[in-house]
Amino acid sequence: MLSRKIADSTVRRLAIYLRFLEEFEEHGEATLSSEALASRAGTTSAQVRKDLSFFGSFGKRGLGYDVSALASELRGILGLNRRYRVILVGAGRLAAALVQYAEFGARGFDIVAAVDKDPGRIGTRWGELVVGDVADLETIIRHHRIDIAILVTPADPAQALVDRLVASGVTAMLNFAPVQLHVPHGTDVKNVNLAVELETLSYAIRHRGAPAQR
Amino acid sequence: MLSRKIADSTVRRLAIYLRFLEEFEEHGEATLSSEALASRAGTTSAQVRKDLSFFGSFGKRGLGYDVSALASELRGILGLNRRYRVILVGAGRLAAALVQYAEFGARGFDIVAAVDKDPGRIGTRWGELVVGDVADLETIIRHHRIDIAILVTPADPAQALVDRLVASGVTAMLNFAPVQLHVPHGTDVKNVNLAVELETLSYAIRHRGAPAQR
Repeated sequence: MLSRKIADSTVRRLAIYLRFLEEFEEHGEATLSSEALASRAGTTSAQVRKDLSFFGSFGKRGLGYDVSALASELRGILGLNRRYRVILVGAGRLAAALVQYAEFGARGFDIVAAVDKDPGRIGTRWGELVVGDVADLETIIRHHRIDIAILVTPADPAQALVDRLVASGVTAMLNFAPVQLHVPHGTDVKNVNLAVELETLSYAIRHRGAPAQR
Repeated sequence: MLSRKIADSTVRRLAIYLRFLEEFEEHGEATLSSEALASRAGTTSAQVRKDLSFFGSFGKRGLGYDVSALASELRGILGLNRRYRVILVGAGRLAAALVQYAEFGARGFDIVAAVDKDPGRIGTRWGELVVGDVADLETIIRHHRIDIAILVTPADPAQALVDRLVASGVTAMLNFAPVQLHVPHGTDVKNVNLAVELETLSYAIRHRGAPAQR
């Protein structure tokens, strides 16, 4: 596909634009300028136009964007016109927080399973979900037809777990473990490193200049 | 300062490079090529050289980078040669997970306070920390000489809390609330939106092509 080489940062901005478009839609706004969208998303209208131009021609000169049409296009581009079945690999405190994170469900991501190796956690009930034994990972993935895995383990066991996920056919992973994972071609891993996010702030404090909001 | 306009994505990569340099340092490696660093960080050697070129001239042609010297430079650039005092605004499940996140302390970020408005949470002990009343936010910030706030509240109260943080002199914030915050010039806000991270995966699944790892 044409859009295969789009940078993660562009995809993230599209997801942010979609949030604001849906907000404008709720408020009954029919059209929106790239300036208004840019200002809400903390970027420039040139960036908005450039981001959208990868995917086609949206909006009309002088008339702005059709809010509902662009929101619908972005949902399609982001693959949000279907639901995804998600497993939490690791059932510690961060996993317990994520399972309660209402926005996941609202955006189409259903956490349907969780596993851990700690006998003290296995069998714990989280709402409708019961924490399973990581020894049964392959069976659980097959049973729940998992699309996406969220890895919330320490660094050490992460790669071995990822190898098992890959072997079980899971091709998309969100990794919170502080380690660079190796996966074959055709598997996507996105890393969330919360300490790195804090380091963008220590950098900003150190180089105090213009405020940065992304 | 010259480096004021560096993109967040560059700063994030510098933080990732630093992690690998420290790992190589632990293994007793004295020098490292930009190719090796790029391969570990999932980027290209051209990108590594470009990222570093913003800050000066590192490495020697054919000899690579001096691991310890470059790590030390990056710590300085990222503002990591000091410690930071952090407050959690909101003491729900995600906050409880963050307070246990060992990497924060290891990178110089000490969570020294937490506040909530829920009487059921106020007074709860988390290790050495006791959850305070958000009504006392200003006093707690002054008492603990807070450098950075991590906002882990629902969307609704977030802006009012940020206004109070700004008025109390907090100039750096990591925001988990799903809302775009408005802050004055000179205050930095970085947004972490975990649903957006999942949407980079649904995008990847929708546009299955080359694997992406950042």
